[in-house]
Amino acid sequence: MNNYTFYNPTKLYFGPDQIENNLGACVKKYGDKVLLMYGGGSIKKNGTYDRVMKALEGVEVHEFHGIEPNPQYTTVNKATDVCKEFDCNVVLAVGGGSVIDAAKVVTQAKFYDGDCWDLVTQEASVDQGLPLIAIPTMAAAGSENDAWAVISNADTNQKLDPWGETFQPVAAFVDPTISYTVSAYQTAVGAADILSHVTDIRYFIKEHKISFIDEWMEAMCRNVIRTAPIAIAEPTNEEARETLSLASYMITGGIVDQGGSSDMPLHLTEYGIAAFYEIPHGHGIAILMPRWMQYILSDETAPAFYRFGTACMNIAEGMDVMEGAQATIDALTDWLYGKLGLESHLAAFGVEESKLHDMAVKALRGKEVVHGLTDLTLEDVENIFKMCM
Amino acid sequence: MNNYTFYNPTKLYFGPDQIENNLGACVKKYGDKVLLMYGGGSIKKNGTYDRVMKALEGVEVHEFHGIEPNPQYTTVNKATDVCKEFDCNVVLAVGGGSVIDAAKVVTQAKFYDGDCWDLVTQEASVDQGLPLIAIPTMAAAGSENDAWAVISNADTNQKLDPWGETFQPVAAFVDPTISYTVSAYQTAVGAADILSHVTDIRYFIKEHKISFIDEWMEAMCRNVIRTAPIAIAEPTNEEARETLSLASYMITGGIVDQGGSSDMPLHLTEYGIAAFYEIPHGHGIAILMPRWMQYILSDETAPAFYRFGTACMNIAEGMDVMEGAQATIDALTDWLYGKLGLESHLAAFGVEESKLHDMAVKALRGKEVVHGLTDLTLEDVENIFKMCM
Repeated sequence: MNNYTFYNPTKLYFGPDQIENNLGACVKKYGDKVLLMYGGGSIKKNGTYDRVMKALEGVEVHEFHGIEPNPQYTTVNKATDVCKEFDCNVVLAVGGGSVIDAAKVVTQAKFYDGDCWDLVTQEASVDQGLPLIAIPTMAAAGSENDAWAVISNADTNQKLDPWGETFQPVAAFVDPTISYTVSAYQTAVGAADILSHVTDIRYFIKEHKISFIDEWMEAMCRNVIRTAPIAIAEPTNEEARETLSLASYMITGGIVDQGGSSDMPLHLTEYGIAAFYEIPHGHGIAILMPRWMQYILSDETAPAFYRFGTACMNIAEGMDVMEGAQATIDALTDWLYGKLGLESHLAAFGVEESKLHDMAVKALRGKEVVHGLTDLTLEDVENIFKMCM
Repeated sequence: MNNYTFYNPTKLYFGPDQIENNLGACVKKYGDKVLLMYGGGSIKKNGTYDRVMKALEGVEVHEFHGIEPNPQYTTVNKATDVCKEFDCNVVLAVGGGSVIDAAKVVTQAKFYDGDCWDLVTQEASVDQGLPLIAIPTMAAAGSENDAWAVISNADTNQKLDPWGETFQPVAAFVDPTISYTVSAYQTAVGAADILSHVTDIRYFIKEHKISFIDEWMEAMCRNVIRTAPIAIAEPTNEEARETLSLASYMITGGIVDQGGSSDMPLHLTEYGIAAFYEIPHGHGIAILMPRWMQYILSDETAPAFYRFGTACMNIAEGMDVMEGAQATIDALTDWLYGKLGLESHLAAFGVEESKLHDMAVKALRGKEVVHGLTDLTLEDVENIFKMCM
């Protein structure tokens, strides 16, 4: 029996009317000068910006926008400058994981005199942070319910994911109807990301497990696999969007992370790609996942893959375990590149064969191996990259 | 799509070494004068008391013990007197749901000059409460992770369940090995209580549901149904105790309560029994559950019961729905009174036919109906009581 802690203090406001009904009061509980952070402006097109600004009537709002996918530390520095200039006392992030992650670092950088990159590398730290409220605009990384921030540095080709106690949002407003306007492509990469959060962090691991928590993960994956193609075909399908939004939220926050976890081999491997190339995180994960499974398929790993297939992908029970595991990998491949329509090769993004070794070095981060269902060496990671080309 | 909030700020310390490793620091974070509350002394016999006292070295400890099952408001008043006398600033409850519920009310009564019953009836209120830390000694009501307190009044034959923001423990130490010494009987009523928390509050309801949350509830019930007989036969079975302890914790706190909930018809009906008779809560629930299902069985309710049977009780798929629902009720009856060995009749506890009407009146609490999968009138509740005799 393992010892662990589970602490998920973010307050979730779920549903289509929460911004109108509760956002204003929630913000005012924490401050009166808001730094409003968002990305490229899609929230202006889909009406979310207007809804938020109406809810913020009576509060001083300072905006910072233009946060890019895989947010750069330089962008976080600029946002921090605005936060400091107006002495904001609460941060409101409206966007995808990139916006929310950038905002997390701003909450601490407000109290730090140097470059925010010092906080990302954890060479420096502060012991306070502004309260953060998150409004996710798509179902993906679930950053609205965890204390991790993924920040990139194009100067050093690094992508790091520091954890900070104050990175955990105090509140999250999850309105699945906002995601009605999310493109088929973003819906697909978001669904792949949700799935990988379940499988990579907690489900495909060697350590101790608690049965019903495993079954919770299977229920979540089964429903994400079922509803993502529906959301793509019918963007305003209520049940599909609600399922994806809630799954995105519930997978983080540690709820299904009880009993043990891994080094997140897929995530670390993907960071190796992202250190050099602009590929959306969920897409990098989608390209890696079936190849990683194929690479580590063995008598030892096959039972876990086959169980996943029967529980989540309608793979028949009673097959030979190795055949069942292969059927699972094939079904996942079909789901990702067929049903979700995602490009399946890294080469299509301009990734060069000559870079694969450097990417693997970045993924390992100086460690001997990445721990997971099967431990991966530098050579293993490079081989998996080759399979993705 | 419903609007709802989900907020579960209790920090869970789970596992066999958490009291030794973290209780002292956790208590000191909140205060230096602890009111330690417990029940009849089983924690002295099983070693938990010594473990807790060792962890509390360096903290001023004031004890209040002797809290009875279905705790009386008069007992809460006495505990509050001790809390006030020594000006305690943190409350530590070590026991079952009764101890934790009594402690919840003490956290507020500390700041109230009158009788605590005023707070239970919510005729009076205070806007502050001491921080509460809970150490559950058995897997049952999950009171360690919610903000409800069930308090009885033998003078007025009332059993009420007020909700209070500060009733939510700031931390819970859940060590499944403590429950190794829980009797077969208490293990059985605890398991019945856990099951009813899933089915009564959230699973058997008419309202909107989110698929994977339903499947989470089924996973939880399936595993409770599987492991409770194991824990009874083999009290130190690690997996069984771990499953029951974590299920008890996770079912409360609102995690599976997302999307909608009912009036808790079984719980309200059981409060009608408890207002007049000393029957452990989980046992009252166990006697009621299959009779309630049988009473409301219809073309409308059968699909939900049959689905529960196939998902949680190994009832075969492909049966006629009404037959499948009946098979589910029969299997649940066998689990409760056969496998768990619980007495199945209210009459065995001295419940008199002549009291059934008064019990039903108490259960309804002045309302026309109790809402649930089927709404229940006063006559319905009385009829269900008759089936239980």
